[in-house]
Amino acid sequence: MNDLRVDKARLWDSLMTHAQIGARDDGGINREALTPEDGKGRDLFADWCRDLGMEVAVDALGNMFATYAGTDNDLLPVALGSHLDTQPCGGKFDGVLGVLAGLEVVRTLHDAGLRTRRPITVINWTSEEGSRFVPSMAASGVYAGIFSMDEARTWTDREGIGFIEALRDIGYEGAEPVGDRKFAAFLELHIEQGPVLERKGAMVGVVTGAQAMSYNTVTIRGRESHAGTTPMDMRLDPVGAFTRIAAACYAKANATKDARFTVGLIDTTPESHSTIPNTVEFTLDLRHPKADVLADLIATYEAAAEAERALGFDIERDEFGASPELVFNETCVNAVRDAVKTCGYSAMELVSGAGHDAVYVTHVCPTAMIFSPCKDGISHNPAESITPEEAEAGANVLLQAALTLADAETIPA
Amino acid sequence: MNDLRVDKARLWDSLMTHAQIGARDDGGINREALTPEDGKGRDLFADWCRDLGMEVAVDALGNMFATYAGTDNDLLPVALGSHLDTQPCGGKFDGVLGVLAGLEVVRTLHDAGLRTRRPITVINWTSEEGSRFVPSMAASGVYAGIFSMDEARTWTDREGIGFIEALRDIGYEGAEPVGDRKFAAFLELHIEQGPVLERKGAMVGVVTGAQAMSYNTVTIRGRESHAGTTPMDMRLDPVGAFTRIAAACYAKANATKDARFTVGLIDTTPESHSTIPNTVEFTLDLRHPKADVLADLIATYEAAAEAERALGFDIERDEFGASPELVFNETCVNAVRDAVKTCGYSAMELVSGAGHDAVYVTHVCPTAMIFSPCKDGISHNPAESITPEEAEAGANVLLQAALTLADAETIPA
Repeated sequence: MNDLRVDKARLWDSLMTHAQIGARDDGGINREALTPEDGKGRDLFADWCRDLGMEVAVDALGNMFATYAGTDNDLLPVALGSHLDTQPCGGKFDGVLGVLAGLEVVRTLHDAGLRTRRPITVINWTSEEGSRFVPSMAASGVYAGIFSMDEARTWTDREGIGFIEALRDIGYEGAEPVGDRKFAAFLELHIEQGPVLERKGAMVGVVTGAQAMSYNTVTIRGRESHAGTTPMDMRLDPVGAFTRIAAACYAKANATKDARFTVGLIDTTPESHSTIPNTVEFTLDLRHPKADVLADLIATYEAAAEAERALGFDIERDEFGASPELVFNETCVNAVRDAVKTCGYSAMELVSGAGHDAVYVTHVCPTAMIFSPCKDGISHNPAESITPEEAEAGANVLLQAALTLADAETIPA
Repeated sequence: MNDLRVDKARLWDSLMTHAQIGARDDGGINREALTPEDGKGRDLFADWCRDLGMEVAVDALGNMFATYAGTDNDLLPVALGSHLDTQPCGGKFDGVLGVLAGLEVVRTLHDAGLRTRRPITVINWTSEEGSRFVPSMAASGVYAGIFSMDEARTWTDREGIGFIEALRDIGYEGAEPVGDRKFAAFLELHIEQGPVLERKGAMVGVVTGAQAMSYNTVTIRGRESHAGTTPMDMRLDPVGAFTRIAAACYAKANATKDARFTVGLIDTTPESHSTIPNTVEFTLDLRHPKADVLADLIATYEAAAEAERALGFDIERDEFGASPELVFNETCVNAVRDAVKTCGYSAMELVSGAGHDAVYVTHVCPTAMIFSPCKDGISHNPAESITPEEAEAGANVLLQAALTLADAETIPA
């Protein structure tokens, strides 16, 4: 089946048809998790799956599993998928590409009258975006044991509507316990949401793992004083301390291959132009594919903070989130590598810099990811854009990797 | 009258008695402009003035003028004063010291059975703090022609209560047109609100002028992107641009005598730890006693901003406030210098870094200021603190300078 290929036009047409649900005037999509639009998007996906004779199951958190039978249905299925929910001002491809490319894989098999040895299940994970309900990757997180069902029952949106309540409202609370359903492997095709593939001119990204990440809030306390009356040498100005710490972190990150250092939020207290703040609070987001290099980045921050403490500042770092260095399953990644070769696409290997359902699922199931380039690296934005050829390439690699895995006797963890 | 001195205990007792009006549990004062507490503070001041036979007049913005007759009442009076309103969480001395020291000057003359040649008017300027009603130095500003009465009629607090309405509510809307009443000179005693006198061990500050100031909002626009997926060398990170611009300004201000550079407020858009912001907005508060040096500080900022523009950032500076270099009246400053010598206090000359009623009044009347040290430079805070000896010293210098000016035939502008 090495010469089997997806139908580019059909895949693109499905993407564009699905993008009409929650379409915004600016070309973007608003299909936040568990809204009526999310419900409509799910219904369309389920209808398309049933048209192929797939069996559609839903678990207690609304995760959808559409299964195309194999020739040996006692073996665990190979799963393909991503998520259909979007940011409130999202694009047409983030998440949706991975689900509809999974569907396109099955359509291709169905058209050719083929069945793989293992069943193939196309998955829509509930509430990946984290925009309406926190956390992100919510239901894949429960599936993988990162969050508990008890936690899930406490999730509410800004209006106080519960996750489970919203799920019921759109008719997607299933009976199946979350996590009970097992898979031989899981493959997720997703847009890169970054500029690297485009810069390298690669049609496909082979994702070998995910970055180690550390999310922190840093609080620097100095001394509030008057902007006009306090000489520079009598200040304990936390903005100055912030500037020096940030400069040290930028220098280190700029000099360290594959490092990421981001200050996304800065707050001063009080907020007055004529008062040297007593406090600066900022977020420190550090990432690197290697845990030991991430530790080195954190050490650079700590050394800079320690130098400021010696000047009299009180500085605290609160790590509110962290993610370990993550390496995807070797058999699954090799299946993707082989698929790239089979199809003859220009490709590069890279590490995911964003969170994805696959990053959680890999904890309980052999997993790999495939990236498609996206224009200017833009995502979570109406301007999010990929070409039909890029979507086709990603789906063909997904197809070929799925064929390899679906015929495998065993897939080692 | 060179050996005439104020009554330290009486001055301190008046300060402590007046501080009971609007007293907070934390030792601070909440007597915001035109609140019932401000009304009570005014009433007490007026009662104390009338006890000395002073005539109390009120203008259309509530400015209070309590006049102690001289021996030649055809000559313009010498005015002494400041403001009785406080920040919502203010201290016992900011403003009040200057008004009650003015009263103490008259009490000292009255006790000694003395009258100066010119009348002496003690002034309470309305709404100096700018915390309830914007702008600061509101009614002295109208008096000096900085703001118009038409503007004053538009001023409202956060609840939408008008300045004039609030003035009527506390019974302090006078008939006298603002600015009609003229003075030969105005002297304002005020706490320094900075740490310089304390550091130098000076009991009194001779204020020779006020800093040139430039208040700006700077907006840096870069490119929003994903904190995990965007390599450092593909970012247009406005936080990085901010850091570099701030570092250049700090370096210049630290190396420039008497310069002040303050970033009091920083905002990022959007506020997400995992997103490189598209925009950073910050306040740039630059001050220096000399206008040409201030221009040099601004040029340093501009050069740093230009270097960032060359990298692709869009940067705008909006100057929302500015104040020219200001030199107080030579005759008035000399009267203060002579008073310091007469009293034998340790003193230093300095330039005001904060705004004061005197900074506006100097535009229409020969003016000077006297500073008293305040503990750790702290002001606008319950911890605001001066000693009875420091209050006494300031009041004695005010007394002796007032005597000199009140006997002067002419005071050149």
